[in-house]
Formats: sequence, structure tokens, C-alpha cells
Amino acid sequence: MTGRHRNVPATAGAAMHALVAELYPLCRSITGNGVRQTLEILGKRLALDVHEVPSGTQVFDWMIPREWNIRDAYIADRDGRRVVDFRRSNLHVMSYSAPVRARMTLPELRPHLFTRPDWAEVVPYRTSYYKETWGFCLSERTLQQMREDEYDVVIDSTLEPGSLTYGEHYLPGATDDEVLISCHVCHPSLANDNLSAIAVAVTLAEALAARPSRRYSYRFLFIPGTIGSITWLARNEERVGRIKHGLILAGLGAGEGFTYKKSRRGDAEIDRAVGHVLRDAKGAVAVNDFSPYGYDERQFCSPGFNLPVGCLMKTPHGTYREYHTSADDVQFVTLAALTESLETLERIVDVLEHNVRYVNLSPKCEPQLGRRGLYRSLGGEMDAASRELAMLWVLNMSDGGPALLDIADRAALPFQTIQAAAAALANHGLLKPVTDLS
Amino acid sequence: MTGRHRNVPATAGAAMHALVAELYPLCRSITGNGVRQTLEILGKRLALDVHEVPSGTQVFDWMIPREWNIRDAYIADRDGRRVVDFRRSNLHVMSYSAPVRARMTLPELRPHLFTRPDWAEVVPYRTSYYKETWGFCLSERTLQQMREDEYDVVIDSTLEPGSLTYGEHYLPGATDDEVLISCHVCHPSLANDNLSAIAVAVTLAEALAARPSRRYSYRFLFIPGTIGSITWLARNEERVGRIKHGLILAGLGAGEGFTYKKSRRGDAEIDRAVGHVLRDAKGAVAVNDFSPYGYDERQFCSPGFNLPVGCLMKTPHGTYREYHTSADDVQFVTLAALTESLETLERIVDVLEHNVRYVNLSPKCEPQLGRRGLYRSLGGEMDAASRELAMLWVLNMSDGGPALLDIADRAALPFQTIQAAAAALANHGLLKPVTDLS
Amino acid sequence: MTGRHRNVPATAGAAMHALVAELYPLCRSITGNGVRQTLEILGKRLALDVHEVPSGTQVFDWMIPREWNIRDAYIADRDGRRVVDFRRSNLHVMSYSAPVRARMTLPELRPHLFTRPDWAEVVPYRTSYYKETWGFCLSERTLQQMREDEYDVVIDSTLEPGSLTYGEHYLPGATDDEVLISCHVCHPSLANDNLSAIAVAVTLAEALAARPSRRYSYRFLFIPGTIGSITWLARNEERVGRIKHGLILAGLGAGEGFTYKKSRRGDAEIDRAVGHVLRDAKGAVAVNDFSPYGYDERQFCSPGFNLPVGCLMKTPHGTYREYHTSADDVQFVTLAALTESLETLERIVDVLEHNVRYVNLSPKCEPQLGRRGLYRSLGGEMDAASRELAMLWVLNMSDGGPALLDIADRAALPFQTIQAAAAALANHGLLKPVTDLS
Repeated sequence: MTGRHRNVPATAGAAMHALVAELYPLCRSITGNGVRQTLEILGKRLALDVHEVPSGTQVFDWMIPREWNIRDAYIADRDGRRVVDFRRSNLHVMSYSAPVRARMTLPELRPHLFTRPDWAEVVPYRTSYYKETWGFCLSERTLQQMREDEYDVVIDSTLEPGSLTYGEHYLPGATDDEVLISCHVCHPSLANDNLSAIAVAVTLAEALAARPSRRYSYRFLFIPGTIGSITWLARNEERVGRIKHGLILAGLGAGEGFTYKKSRRGDAEIDRAVGHVLRDAKGAVAVNDFSPYGYDERQFCSPGFNLPVGCLMKTPHGTYREYHTSADDVQFVTLAALTESLETLERIVDVLEHNVRYVNLSPKCEPQLGRRGLYRSLGGEMDAASRELAMLWVLNMSDGGPALLDIADRAALPFQTIQAAAAALANHGLLKPVTDLS
Repeated sequence: MTGRHRNVPATAGAAMHALVAELYPLCRSITGNGVRQTLEILGKRLALDVHEVPSGTQVFDWMIPREWNIRDAYIADRDGRRVVDFRRSNLHVMSYSAPVRARMTLPELRPHLFTRPDWAEVVPYRTSYYKETWGFCLSERTLQQMREDEYDVVIDSTLEPGSLTYGEHYLPGATDDEVLISCHVCHPSLANDNLSAIAVAVTLAEALAARPSRRYSYRFLFIPGTIGSITWLARNEERVGRIKHGLILAGLGAGEGFTYKKSRRGDAEIDRAVGHVLRDAKGAVAVNDFSPYGYDERQFCSPGFNLPVGCLMKTPHGTYREYHTSADDVQFVTLAALTESLETLERIVDVLEHNVRYVNLSPKCEPQLGRRGLYRSLGGEMDAASRELAMLWVLNMSDGGPALLDIADRAALPFQTIQAAAAALANHGLLKPVTDLS
Repeated sequence: MTGRHRNVPATAGAAMHALVAELYPLCRSITGNGVRQTLEILGKRLALDVHEVPSGTQVFDWMIPREWNIRDAYIADRDGRRVVDFRRSNLHVMSYSAPVRARMTLPELRPHLFTRPDWAEVVPYRTSYYKETWGFCLSERTLQQMREDEYDVVIDSTLEPGSLTYGEHYLPGATDDEVLISCHVCHPSLANDNLSAIAVAVTLAEALAARPSRRYSYRFLFIPGTIGSITWLARNEERVGRIKHGLILAGLGAGEGFTYKKSRRGDAEIDRAVGHVLRDAKGAVAVNDFSPYGYDERQFCSPGFNLPVGCLMKTPHGTYREYHTSADDVQFVTLAALTESLETLERIVDVLEHNVRYVNLSPKCEPQLGRRGLYRSLGGEMDAASRELAMLWVLNMSDGGPALLDIADRAALPFQTIQAAAAALANHGLLKPVTDLS
């Protein structure tokens, strides 16, 4: 993609990176105070509706679990030295660990210790939301240094009736038709996964608010993965028909290029819009078919909903070394990647906002563009500039069927070139938009 | 394909090879006692309806020809030495040769002698069913050794009103919907073409009979090529609507890999089932579009019938050196090839038998597989095992449209993995089969 | 393509080349006497309706411009020596140049001089139809030799109310359904672009007239580019529904292979017919999708008409060095290229004329071709000759759906092989043409 998007200021990257750094220390999980604190910080930027859904609430086939909170946790040796210490990294405790206070030998403790034997330096990230157990995550190096000894094992956590918390930001547009942008907020100190996407989403919401007009309304969700999207869908079942396009955002702070996973429909407008924009993206681009494993598109694209929701990532889950380890830290996230993600999303939104159908009002033969100053009047040259070619494409295809994105794809020209050509032709009375926005 | 199919015993290959050897010496043609003797041997294994259709019977555009039988034939030199002798190989006489008893010079005899100049050692196979003539097939080497001399030329054959003989084996299932399996029985001492397919078909019929239940009924035809299938279709015109899937079997005893020729429809369920199974076959696999040249699929796929009948081969006609020569003998057929063919057919039948549609009874968001013990309860890992992935695919796609084969193809998982996942989900009340079997 | 088309005599190439040479000196433009003289010469060969449409006539969004004629033009130096002289080449004057008579310094004159800096020897071709101006085209070499001096600059042209002239030749067939063949006649001394196509079109018209029968009527247009086709469409709007297939011809006298640009429909019968014929053409063949930049297919394929009109070229505009320069002269055009173009068009017409649907009258199983002498009666061979295979394809596919071109494409056999097979089968009562020609 050449050049910065007009709506993205040069300072955007640094601001997003600062937000990632601010959110990083919080111990988030699918419920609990970490999510609340996160939403509180986001709420300084966006008008956020924060919802609390009580434990025990049935949401489709699932039930909101007890709320999990944690104050402290450690494994201390006979000398009282904390070999593993939650205060150093919240990754050290398996998320949703039940409270423990015991003295154990290493063999007794061992089944509760998780490492990455293939990468000795890092602490892995583990969860056990729906099976009550407890565990510690530590580096393989630390494990190797633990002597046969007795250890004080403490997890000062609570698993009690409470609620699941999520945030929602709504930005109204000219119509009730919605674009949904959703990102998971349930991971603790992992920067790329998914603080990067949270920072990009917040910044995108601000940029869209600053636009003079919006065709669509925009709904941003900051929700815990799986149970959060299921909860939101259960509580908004009657209103999901408004969602015309949607994107799950994940892993947008590192790596080269983009990976887009299409919606279950496969040919939804959002799929085509993202595909078009990514065609000109820097770095390797993959556009993959839907599969039922991944992020919250799994729920939005379940057969009972089948919403046009895809997933945009720079770093797909499980495909990069730092994934779900302590190496996914603030340094792993780059200003360049955050900026590129934001610009790409702005371009995708541009396509959605302006992808309308026009009808050629002079459909029999070409109109004489030259006498309107729309076309070079000097013939006999070999090349037609792409602006002129764009006008010819728009005139030729605008029979009420294809929309501008169809024309851009067919002409292999950037959407904004086609959009500018259509605007010029409409200004000269040669095109009329099809008023029905569907 | 990994591992032996559960229904195929280790001794199956040897038993099929023994049947090929037993049938090899008989002088089959499109009519006559060779076919009767062949069906008699098969009748010891299967309950076989043997049909006799009189010469002169009109079958669509064709007429059942006179019956051909042969007792002896030779070319003897002046010393009475049989230079070419039917008793050594029934390939030496062109099939359907009219009776001859004459003394001829070599130049007179020469137009009736057929060799393979490109392969001096072998005797070719030739027929002249519908134009009355006679001929001898011999090796080029033998021809080169024949002196300019007078020869006694004898073909002790009969071409007389009689009948065309074919065999039919019917194995009932839960419905009247039929799977048709047909192989030609008109070739004399050629082992791969088509005794191999006959042996595989007989063994498949026995294996299907041993299954505890069958969704489909199975009809096995042992018929002479072309005129046999035309005769069967003419006599069963009212009942062909029952044929839901069909396979012509030919050349299944030698060679690596498989060639499948699709039905005229091109996207029939049998075409997709065979394509799916062959994707995991050993060796080179070719799946070819229908063409109107080949085996009896020509008749089943004529436009007035257009049945979903394809053709499964290991060695397509005309593509291997031994084709239609004396080199296609019992040694050319291998136990491994016969076994692989049988196992592949069992797998194809498995797909047909179990390719049903399910409806997800919990279609809004994913059901919670973990609490049912269907899914790992421990999150945070990178890989989903394919059994779990298979369940997600089945749940996501089972909206009443796709059947299990569609899901297996889309998920790029083996049919049996998808089938097992669907069974597990149905057991837990998460899926319901669409009862309509169509 | 192997062998000469039966209708193309060996002398055709030389005759077409002579016509190109005869037309070459005339100074054509989009109006004026050059076009009239051109049509007069063509009128000796074909019965031509010559239309004159007055200046000022509205044709859709356009207006017929004033008529342009020119007697002389030059740039003479102080010594009266003509540095640039219209009498040497009519390319020296920008087409539609307004009259000029002035003495100018070189800096004053310079903005009106056009060269090809990248190819110093040639004179470029330029026009300014709709913006009144004037200009000279000259070689870069000549320009470099012009001294700082005063020059007499004369263009003795007229731009006055008159008319636009075009020619039309109609060749009736068995039905009113038309095949349209159109070529532009507005270029001055450029031989390949487009005298080559004019010569090929004239010769094709004569060859079609000599055919004993024609299924279609044929309409040949010899018109100025853009404004000519717009004028013709405006005057024939009610009748364009008769056009079932159409081709724009351009640049058919030089180069290897062919480029075909499909109609806007993309799958029109003309697109498939040309694609089929070009598959066997010599040299590189390109079949391109429609785009709204090019020749008069732009007008015929405007969305208000959307006629099935493609464009056949050997040398696409802008892709060869000589394009729109004085190097596109009579020597640039070859007999071989003209002949190959004519033969290819004859083959395309053959497909259109004979692309009918048949119904197999013996659709249940194959008919017995052998007893009708249509098929070899001797079995047991490996190869079926393509004539026999063609008959099997025609019988198998002729269920009322596919036409012969569909069958030829599916069978990957030449159309004429399929056509001959269908004719033989129809002669034997096995096929019946579907009478509806649609």
C-alpha cells in the first residue's frame, strides 16, 4: 500500500504503542477485575457501555462461570525464596486457578507445572476456565533449577459468584446498518495477543468519529473470547440482523503482511472488501477460507447466525514463535505494525462506506467525456491514463448490477480510483446512485 | 491409504488370485459356453440369477447375435505340425470366427493372420462380433518362422441360434435404492482384463453380505461387454431409476494407483465418493471426466439413461503394454493389486452407506463440548486435534445442506473421521440426522 | 491451423495486399473526401450503401462535427524549401487541423510540432477531432535539423458544415439474424491500421456471397472510429436486436498469432466460436476479457446495447512499435498475415453457420454404428479414430442441450470434425436438428 491513509496521523503508532504498554501489566481473564480495569482505561478514550452479566446466567448452551480474581501466588522454597512469583508476571499462574495453600514435594507439585520444553527461556500461557484445577507456568530453565525439596505453594485467588464484564462502544451513522468490530480482552500480559488489536480498535473508533459523515453505524466490542461473544450474541439475538459487515481483530501489532480469514459465507461484501484492500498491502498476504477453529468468528459464524464476520490478523494464532508466551511482550509490538493495521482498517472502512451502485444515465454508447473536460481531447496517443480508464469502467459496468467494488475488482484498479471516477461522473450528471443501499 | 480395511481379511488377495487362475483357461466370448462355465464357477460363491436371452432378440438398436462356440482350431503345416493351436491358447482364434476347413498357401492365409509387429513375442487378442469373418492371432515371431507352404486351416466353431448369457446377484438392503456393480465377462484368457475385476466383485459381494446392515441394496452384474449391458438395460428399463450409484469395474489386478472415470453427470455422489477415497490412495491417481469411449459406462451413461455410473480401473484400457495380449496372464495379476482394489471399494461403499445429512440442534454459537467430555477442557494449547476439529466442522456445516461427504471434502479430513465425529455428536443429542435419505 | 481454408484461393493474399496499396495514399479522417474516395474504391467490389449524415446531427451524447478537408500543408524555411510537406505524407498534418497561414519563429511553432523522441526516424500519427487546434507531425530527426529561423506555416484545410460518410454492405441469408463485421476507415496512410482489416473484410464479404447458402445475414460496416459507430447505432437503434454475433476487425495485416477481445458478455457465442477457432491458430494467441478501452466494441458493448460483439486483431493497438507511425506502411503488411486473417474469419463464420443443436433419436444405449457402416466392425484395437470418437461424442451429448460447438469444446476436437460426424449421423437418421435456431 503506497502512502499513509489521509485519516492516520504520524503520531498514531506511538499513541497505540503507549496504550499497549499501559494495559500490559493488568491480569485479565474471561472475568474479573483485570477486564474491568482494562475497560476503565479504554473508557477514558471512548464512550463505553460496560455490561456486567451475573455468574450462572445461561447463554445458549453455556453458563456464565464464577468470577475469578487473584491477589498473589508463588512457589517458595524452604528458604522462603519465591522461585515462581505472580508479582513478576501474571502469566505464572494458570488462568482460573483455584486457590491453593500447601506444602508439597517437587514430585507432588510437578503435575501442576507447565513449561515450554522447546524454548527454555519463556513462560507459557495456560488457562483452565471450565475444569476446576490449578497450575503454575514457568520457564523450562527455572524448572530445571528446582531442587528436590519441599515448597510452599500459594495461589491467593477467588472463584466466586460475580459477573462477566464486557465493553461496547456504539458510533451512530446515517443508517442503523452496522459494522461490527470485535476484539478479545481476556488475555493477561500478552501484548500482541491482543492488546495490539484493542489499541488499533480504539484508535479506529476515534478516527471514524472524526469523519464528517458515516453511511454505517459502528459497534465496537471489547469482550472475553468465546464466552464473551456467546454472551453478547445471546443478549442481542434480536438485533444481529443489523450487522451488515463485521471483523474480529487479533494480533495486529507484529509481523509482516496480513492474514484474513473469510466469513463462513465466503463471498460476503466484507470478504471482498478486505481481499481488495489487502491486494495492495505490503508483505505477504493470505486470504483463507473460513474454518470453524479460531477466534470469535466461530460464534458469529455459527450456522444459527451465519453473520458476515471475518477475522483480520497480522499474526495468526499458533503460527509465530512468541504466541502465548512471555515473549509476546511490549517490545514485540512495533509502531509500524500498529500503524499499518490502522491504515488498512481505514481503507477497508472506506470501501464499505463508498461501495454503492450507480446507474449510467447515458448508457447507449459512451458519453463524450472530452467536451465536459473529463477526458483528454487530444486523440492518437497510446496510453489512457488510469483515471480515464476508471471512468470508462464505471460507465460501462454501471447498469444497476455491479457496485463500485465489483468494478474495481474487474478493472484491477484501486477502489479509491474507481470511487473518484464515479464521483466525477456523478458530478457531471452522467451517473446516478442507486438509492437502495442494500 | 493407511492400514487394511477392517472388512478385508489378510487371505483375501490369495483367494481372489486363485479365482482368477481358475477362470483363466475358459474361452469366453460375448456368447457361448465359456460365459456359462464362468458363471457356474461364480455361482458356487454367490446366489446368481443366470439369464439366457435368445439370439435374434431386439435390444434397443441392437440384436442378440448368434451364439458362438468353438471346439478346436489350428494352422497345420504340410507335416501336420500345428503351427498355431487353439489348444495352447484360446487367444489364437479371433473371437466369433466363422468355421473354416481349407488348405491354403501362406499368401492366401496371410490376410487372416494378426500379430503385434511391435512386440514379437505376444499373441494379440482380436474379435469380430458383428462382421462375419475368421482369423488367427499369433506372435510376430511365429509368423516370421512360417515358410511359404500350404497349410491346413481349421476352425471348428459354430455360429448358430442360441442365446446370450449373463449373471446377476442381488443383495438386499434397508431400501430399494441400489448400488450397481458391473464387470464384463466376455474376454477369454486375459487375466487382468477382466478376471481381476470379476474376482474383486465376487469378494466384495461376500463382504457386503457379511455386514450387519446395509443402507442400500447392491446389484452385481457379470455380463458381456456392450451387448450385455445393452441387453440388461433393455430388460430392466423400468427399474433403472432405483440405481442411485454405480461402478463399472475393469482391470483391477495390476499396476500402481487407480484411474477413475466419472459418470456423465460429472458431479454425481459416486463421483465425489470415489474422488474422496482415492485422494488417500497409494500411487498415482487420475480422476478423469466422462468420455463416450471406454467400457459399459458408455451404455449406462447414454443420454436416454444418464445414470450415475462411473468406471474404476487400476489399468485403463490401451494404456499398458500387456493390454489385449497373451502377456495379460495369471502372473501379471498380483495379490497386492487385487487386495488394494477390494479395500478401495470397501471404502467407497462406506462413504455411500454413511453419507447422510445432519442438522445441528444447537446452531446458535458452539455448544460447550468440554462439559460433555467431547472436547479438551484445558485451553491455551496451539493445536486442536483433528477429532475435535472434525466435530467443529460437523457442527458448523450441519445446517441441513451439506452431507458428511461435503463436510469431509471441505474440511480436508478423511470421511471416517467426519463420520465418527458426527456419530459422537449425535450420541450426545447435538445432531439429528435428516431422515430423508435422498 | 493446418491447411488452407477451402474457400480461400491462393491468390487472395496478393489481391488484398494490392487493395491496401491502392487505398494507402488517401488522406482519410473521421469525415471528408478521403473516406468518400475510399468507399468509392470499395464500391467497385461490393454493393455499398454510402450514407452521408450532416454536420450538427445529434447522435446520442455526441454531435456530427464539421467536415474536414485538406488540400495542402507545409512548413517552409526562409528559402522556400518545404521542411515538412503534406504532399510527401498525409501523416505530417495532425488530423482535423484548422487552417493556418502564418510566418512564425521556431519557438512559436514548436508547441505545434509532434515527434516520437524515442524513434527518431518515424513520423507519428496524431488527431484533434473535438478541440480546434492545428499541428504538424514530423520525425525527431527532421525537428533536430530545423534551425532557429522564421518559417512559413501553411495548412490549407477547411472545417465546414458537411457530413460524416460511412459505407454499409448487406448480404442476406436464410434468416434476418445478422452477423455484424465492422472496421474503422478513418486513418490516413496507415496500412495495417486499418487498411488490412478493410481488405480482409471486403474479401470475406465476397467469399460469403459465393457460398451456396447462408444461415445468417451479414452486415459489413466501413465507418470512422467512435463517432462512426455511435452514428450507426443512433440511426439503427431499433434494429440492433437482429445482431446475433459481431466482430470488430483491426490490425489484421501483420504480426504472428491473434488477439481476441471478448464481448462485454464474455460468454457470447461469438466469444466461444473465436476461442475455439483460435485454439488451433498458428503463433501466440491471446483471448482477453472485455475492457472499455479499445476500438468500436466500446460502443457496441456500451451497457445500453451490450451486443455480442468482440474484436479480432493480429496486432493490438499500442502493442507494436510501428503502431500509429509512418512505419505502418504498405511494406509492413504481409500477404501471409492477410491470408491467415481471412482464413481464420472463414473458420469463425463456419462455426457460427453450423453451430446447431441436435437430438439423438436413439438415446438409450449407443446405436449400432457398425451395421450402418459408420463404425469399424473389427473390434479389439486400441485406438478409436477421431472420426468415430466424434460420432460417439455427438450421440452422447445431443440431448437437446449442447450445440455442436459445446460438443467440440468438450471433446477437444475441431468443430469441423464434430460437424462432419453430426452430418453423417443425421444422414443415417440417428440425429435430428433442433429446428429452433435460437
